Amino acid sequence: MIELADVQAAARRLDGVAHHTPVFTSRTLDGLAGASVHVKAECFQRGGAFKFRGAYNKISSLGGEVRTRGILAYSSGNHAQAVAIAAALLGSRATILMPEDAPVAKTEATRGYGAEIVTYNRWTESREEIGERLADERGLELVRPYDDPLVMAGQGTVALELLQNAPDLDVLVAPVGGGGLIAGCSTVAKSLRPGIRVVGVEPEAGDDTARSLAAGERVRIDVPRTIADGLQAIEPGELTFAVNRERVDEVVSVSDAEIIDAMTFLFDRMKLVVEPSGAVGIAALLAGRVRGKRIGVVVSGGNVGAARFAELLSR
Amino acid sequence: MIELADVQAAARRLDGVAHHTPVFTSRTLDGLAGASVHVKAECFQRGGAFKFRGAYNKISSLGGEVRTRGILAYSSGNHAQAVAIAAALLGSRATILMPEDAPVAKTEATRGYGAEIVTYNRWTESREEIGERLADERGLELVRPYDDPLVMAGQGTVALELLQNAPDLDVLVAPVGGGGLIAGCSTVAKSLRPGIRVVGVEPEAGDDTARSLAAGERVRIDVPRTIADGLQAIEPGELTFAVNRERVDEVVSVSDAEIIDAMTFLFDRMKLVVEPSGAVGIAALLAGRVRGKRIGVVVSGGNVGAARFAELLSR
Repeated sequence: MIELADVQAAARRLDGVAHHTPVFTSRTLDGLAGASVHVKAECFQRGGAFKFRGAYNKISSLGGEVRTRGILAYSSGNHAQAVAIAAALLGSRATILMPEDAPVAKTEATRGYGAEIVTYNRWTESREEIGERLADERGLELVRPYDDPLVMAGQGTVALELLQNAPDLDVLVAPVGGGGLIAGCSTVAKSLRPGIRVVGVEPEAGDDTARSLAAGERVRIDVPRTIADGLQAIEPGELTFAVNRERVDEVVSVSDAEIIDAMTFLFDRMKLVVEPSGAVGIAALLAGRVRGKRIGVVVSGGNVGAARFAELLSR
Repeated sequence: MIELADVQAAARRLDGVAHHTPVFTSRTLDGLAGASVHVKAECFQRGGAFKFRGAYNKISSLGGEVRTRGILAYSSGNHAQAVAIAAALLGSRATILMPEDAPVAKTEATRGYGAEIVTYNRWTESREEIGERLADERGLELVRPYDDPLVMAGQGTVALELLQNAPDLDVLVAPVGGGGLIAGCSTVAKSLRPGIRVVGVEPEAGDDTARSLAAGERVRIDVPRTIADGLQAIEPGELTFAVNRERVDEVVSVSDAEIIDAMTFLFDRMKLVVEPSGAVGIAALLAGRVRGKRIGVVVSGGNVGAARFAELLSR
């Protein structure tokens, strides 16, 4: 389990390094949601998503010798960029293992932050095997995307900042993939405001955490088909689930069409660029699946790309 | 002429009513521009553009009796929404004269803010005649979009806030349509930092202010064909030109293709939704048409709409 003090320690490490992202309000959104809504815009975080917080908190806590040898991460998404930026800032070097068919834009962005990209064929090769071999040969330290106390604590700084801006929330809403963001955020929320409700949001097809909470144990599902590419976890993390079963009150789900509606709303009315995974909280609000008077929503990232955004709209 | 004190008075009127919009920075943008760039994001202003500042400053300065009779504006764009919001906040009522073929989204948004929409056929009717008749019959007060000292002073609060955030700018860049925004902003900039360069940006096809500055008098052009629908002025305002000929150092221009590139950059890398007219400053920077070390850029609005954005990208 992580506690508030772990998140507060993360906040000190991130001070002056991570952005204190702005919190937006919209009268139109308030009207549609029937609540006062505070939107924490992590699309403006370094690397375009909240992931930088956890990655930096983890890597900055490693010993100098470990950092000198270097960092390893598996990811084709926001975690890869976050680890690359954090490693570069801390004088370390990141090696990122990505499928060879990952979008060129993501590969290039990650390389642009100074990381070495190692690709593998995801149909014929095991990334775990390749990762282990690389870690052994080069002495690299694996930074997991969510199942790590320092990563969860780093992500919790999102809620710490949001509650500084809007201290009287009665509901906190956050996306759920592996569960690291909501583990950190629920830890903060339940410590600072014991009566707050913490609501997670998953894509309909990827409801592994909702099922796991219902079953009382971690449930594994097939790789979900959803446009929310950051929320395609097939089962909750071991450490994140231990936190979330205690501190998350409910997990609701949204369809891909609802996610696109939310992205369009955020674009048209709030002028925010939000990726599918980042928009699930607003999607749940607009679909009437979250009730409350003062609701904080984490919009977790903005790495969608203009061309892909246009393609999603034309569906 | 307006002076710094007029803008400071506007700032007092706008305090707690207009948003202090955030200022964004981007390492990628700094690298491309070869400068430290501060982006003032007026897309997050009420109504989605800077126009609210001027409209509210004007309407709040009118006598109570005038406000009770009501406000009139001609506009199919951001000025209409700004006047509608400001009038509603001040207990007045706005009548907005719009062409009957104006986009439904804009008509609906303006009506949503409580304004009465009067439409006219822009091919067979004169909006000035209809406007004058309405003003006479109903005793309405016309609020001009730029050629008014109180409107110019209101828009100048953009630069006042930007220079609070980034006091050491050596260049300030702003879009130029009728010239109200840059008149207010240049007044502030030249008062607070006499050595600053103020650079305006027009669409290539709509370079009436650049021509007018070169000629030393107001020059009228044909209605420009450009995607920057907010910058389709056919000649500078009388009052704005009197200010801008003294305080604007240079006006550069950008093509529609450069504007689309800038909108895409702002979307992809900065997660900002910016309309074509709002993106001309960034377009000029990315095209290498503005030099400086510490550059402030006003991104003036975000009312483009997701569908139109997608359409522009596919050009």
